[in-house]
Amino acid sequence: MKNIYVIGIGTGNPEHMTIQAINAMNAADHVFIPTKGAQKEELADVRREICARYLNKADSKIIEFAVPRRETKERSYGQSVDEWHETIAATYRQLVGDLPENGTAAFLVWGDPSLYDSTLRILERVRDKVEFEITVIPGITSIQALAASHRIPVNLVGKPVEITTGRRLAEEGLKTESTVVMLDGIQAFTTVDDPDTEIFWGAYLGTEDEIVRAGRLGDVADDIVRARAEARERHGWIMDIYLLRKGCDVKN
Amino acid sequence: MKNIYVIGIGTGNPEHMTIQAINAMNAADHVFIPTKGAQKEELADVRREICARYLNKADSKIIEFAVPRRETKERSYGQSVDEWHETIAATYRQLVGDLPENGTAAFLVWGDPSLYDSTLRILERVRDKVEFEITVIPGITSIQALAASHRIPVNLVGKPVEITTGRRLAEEGLKTESTVVMLDGIQAFTTVDDPDTEIFWGAYLGTEDEIVRAGRLGDVADDIVRARAEARERHGWIMDIYLLRKGCDVKN
Ligand SMILES: C[S@@+](CC[C@H](N)C(=O)[O-])C[C@H]1O[C@@H](n2cnc3c(N)ncnc32)[C@H](O)[C@@H]1O
Ligand SMILES: C[S@@+](CC[C@H](N)C(=O)[O-])C[C@H]1O[C@@H](n2cnc3c(N)ncnc32)[C@H](O)[C@@H]1O
Repeated sequence: MKNIYVIGIGTGNPEHMTIQAINAMNAADHVFIPTKGAQKEELADVRREICARYLNKADSKIIEFAVPRRETKERSYGQSVDEWHETIAATYRQLVGDLPENGTAAFLVWGDPSLYDSTLRILERVRDKVEFEITVIPGITSIQALAASHRIPVNLVGKPVEITTGRRLAEEGLKTESTVVMLDGIQAFTTVDDPDTEIFWGAYLGTEDEIVRAGRLGDVADDIVRARAEARERHGWIMDIYLLRKGCDVKN
Repeated sequence: MKNIYVIGIGTGNPEHMTIQAINAMNAADHVFIPTKGAQKEELADVRREICARYLNKADSKIIEFAVPRRETKERSYGQSVDEWHETIAATYRQLVGDLPENGTAAFLVWGDPSLYDSTLRILERVRDKVEFEITVIPGITSIQALAASHRIPVNLVGKPVEITTGRRLAEEGLKTESTVVMLDGIQAFTTVDDPDTEIFWGAYLGTEDEIVRAGRLGDVADDIVRARAEARERHGWIMDIYLLRKGCDVKN
């Protein structure tokens, strides 16, 4: 049976790699690296750097493949994602189909494969044509990179945490004391109308370009909007994440 | 200035250690290992194993310290936690206070320091008596270990995730499609009255004793209750976590 390792590589710092991830990468004969077009070339670079540092098998084949853009025009969000996944599945079918019998390959996934990533979902689609087993290796997520850079816990004592997207925050507002917002292209924190809510924000976490800001929304929201726009302009792309916090630990 | 590394070590598999964590551990002169009394001796063993495998500095001092039990009698939850943190803070004051000037030390934290862990909070209390800097190194959480073992994403496409405790689930019920439940001593999943909700459960994740179960609550809840009781009896303690999932990805 073919075996596919889906390996979390952390969020930009090659030292986020776990020993388990390094071992799995070296157990695979093929390493698949997604490239996302010139703008996010830096992200493919992190993966190449990881291979250069940790791959110690002379005969590993590193195979780069292009990831198409998601088309959004005249499609609902669901349709758009579905179509996009099907296009990527076609590539996966070929990559996995071309593996020798009992071949092994590794997909290097940004952060952790379980969090807003579709590698596992798309691999499920591929099972219609190719048989294989999957081994998942967990990785450091951008949530943990954010918390580490701010040196904070994500939750209040005994309290829940919501992880959501910018889109949903803008539509639904804050629902709990601790809310982590990812995939936010619209700076949804500017729609929160409580200036006392605290924000812990970070961009390009784990990389040399890491930027962080923290404070009351009333004090720092504008500064974050500016810093974000400026950084995005300079890099051509941005990946940012933040925690919104209402209230604090209380003894009751 | 003294420097304290707060290092996430993952959830039982020594290979969850990141390169960054290994380097930080080796940058510290002192490594602090909490012991929790005989029952959870296995947890201290994982930390000892991590030191044995990865510590390559001949002169590191490994210092074990006892963590008191949390007293709950005649106290509210908040009081109980507060008192417990203050007791641990007294130990930290001594450990950190005794470090030489410019001394460095590492606290090895289970999983990731940002998730239902109080090392960072307690260190803040210690600042009243000792000055020091903190560097946080992220680690693999039990959420990611759970998702990896089940080979699943935690979220549905574009949807939120709630992380909560057993206590809150029992009090408040399910609030979103994907709910991760931790710190559950009361098997709160048995209070969810929808048999079609799916559960992805795991105990002792990352260790040799790992157990996982998945299925509709209606089909597997009883089996999990039994497996949990039996394992808890055998080990003398248990650490388990689960994801509850209502619904599935839809194209809309
Ligand atoms: C498609 S999701 C992938 C998340 C990834 N699987 C993880 O575990 O973090 C991309 C989102 O993750 C967040 N993100 C990922 N890497 C990041 C980084 N280095 N700095 C800040 N945010 C990051 C951003 O919110 C971004 O929009
Ligand atoms: C005090 S919290 C610490 C969480 C830890 N900081 C983390 O990042 O996973 C302890 C809870 O984490 C979960 N947990 C930690 N390690 C686990 C493991 N190896 N297997 C299953 N659950 C685990 C359980 O829900 C347990 O009640």
